[in-house]
Amino acid sequence: MSYELYYWPGIQGRGEFVRLALEEAGAAYIDIARMPPKKGMGMSAMMPFMEGRKIEHPMFAPPFLKHGKILVGQTANILHYLGPRLGLAPKDEAGRLWAHQLQLTIADLVSEVHETHHPLATNLYYEDQKAAAVKRSADFRKSRIPKFLGYFEQVLKTNPKRGQYMVGARLSYVDLSIFQIIEGLRYAFPRTMRRQEKDYQGLVELRDSIAERPHIAAYLQSERRIPFNEDGIFRHYPELDKGK
Amino acid sequence: MSYELYYWPGIQGRGEFVRLALEEAGAAYIDIARMPPKKGMGMSAMMPFMEGRKIEHPMFAPPFLKHGKILVGQTANILHYLGPRLGLAPKDEAGRLWAHQLQLTIADLVSEVHETHHPLATNLYYEDQKAAAVKRSADFRKSRIPKFLGYFEQVLKTNPKRGQYMVGARLSYVDLSIFQIIEGLRYAFPRTMRRQEKDYQGLVELRDSIAERPHIAAYLQSERRIPFNEDGIFRHYPELDKGK
Repeated sequence: MSYELYYWPGIQGRGEFVRLALEEAGAAYIDIARMPPKKGMGMSAMMPFMEGRKIEHPMFAPPFLKHGKILVGQTANILHYLGPRLGLAPKDEAGRLWAHQLQLTIADLVSEVHETHHPLATNLYYEDQKAAAVKRSADFRKSRIPKFLGYFEQVLKTNPKRGQYMVGARLSYVDLSIFQIIEGLRYAFPRTMRRQEKDYQGLVELRDSIAERPHIAAYLQSERRIPFNEDGIFRHYPELDKGK
Repeated sequence: MSYELYYWPGIQGRGEFVRLALEEAGAAYIDIARMPPKKGMGMSAMMPFMEGRKIEHPMFAPPFLKHGKILVGQTANILHYLGPRLGLAPKDEAGRLWAHQLQLTIADLVSEVHETHHPLATNLYYEDQKAAAVKRSADFRKSRIPKFLGYFEQVLKTNPKRGQYMVGARLSYVDLSIFQIIEGLRYAFPRTMRRQEKDYQGLVELRDSIAERPHIAAYLQSERRIPFNEDGIFRHYPELDKGK
């Protein structure tokens, strides 16, 4: 039974954390909103889950995943569901909770990345909140990147299974998400990352090892990987990457 | 085996969502950071979980919960763990995922509430970002409260078990969190809520029914319930509740 992923078609966004897990596992999935509308897919197949007054479990926002009768939303929750099924999470409760906790902290970081370019309102254009974005980004670069990445680096180092993966001795969806975080921060804040990366050497090595995994390497070369762009969460606006 | 809750001692904050679940269930728990330091508790018992270099699973931020050997962080994850144990969540996987998804959407709302008074930097005083906070709050009142509360109202209405609870036919931690959201928004944005509440009548009735539950009513009267204040997430700054 193949997985149906529902997410905005033009961006990596939060959907990308789910795509990376499905791709690594070689799972059969359909990226519904990116498929042609004439096959009953595309955006018009996604919106009823959010706007429909008749569905039992309305979705607040994409991404969400349909798998048989199961419909699950919220990125970290989707990964929590998929983890054991794709062999990308520990099977015991304590291990699953820990992986999920880390993923939720990654989600917090992702939200803060979005705030760097939209500190006043999601509904306003970037151009109309640029001055505030410059201030927010300065704090993000100086305080928040070190706080989050410093924490994840510490988690990697204190993992009693020693340094290769974030959780236990095997690859999990958390490692794939760390890859995406490093990629995204490098895209959005290249200058800052060049300065700071020496402090997160473990995470950078983890990123490199993920990029070399055969399924991930093939995915990154494929058309399924949407390039980063200025409609997504990680956006490159040079003025937000300037200064100390 | 009693639960140990770790959270900042002077505010309701995110810890309150956990407290409400423990209180409703009549569970034995210790609010560690609020206990006297001389008993090996207090703040000095909390900080090592966050700063310690020796612990296996360092915590990014409170709240976190210790239960025997299990240590779990991130508010929604704590409730996901507690739910079935306290009889405050469905037992089947689909029901648990749905409750957790709603809780994660509540967490997103809570984060946006925090952004209303700290849109530029968590590390700056409110007074130093008041102009930006006024703008952010205007959008929050006009667009975000209706989006979130409208969604939760829809969930309540489309629940096939008909309207009394958010998830299925029984009380869950999600209902307790909706109570806290309504209380918090009323505290922070009283003027806005007086205008808008007619649109969320189901949620308001749910709030009232929760307030009357014996354990919750007793808790709200007790000293264990910290009053709302301007160090917490829901803060009342009149200038943020003004205008359309």
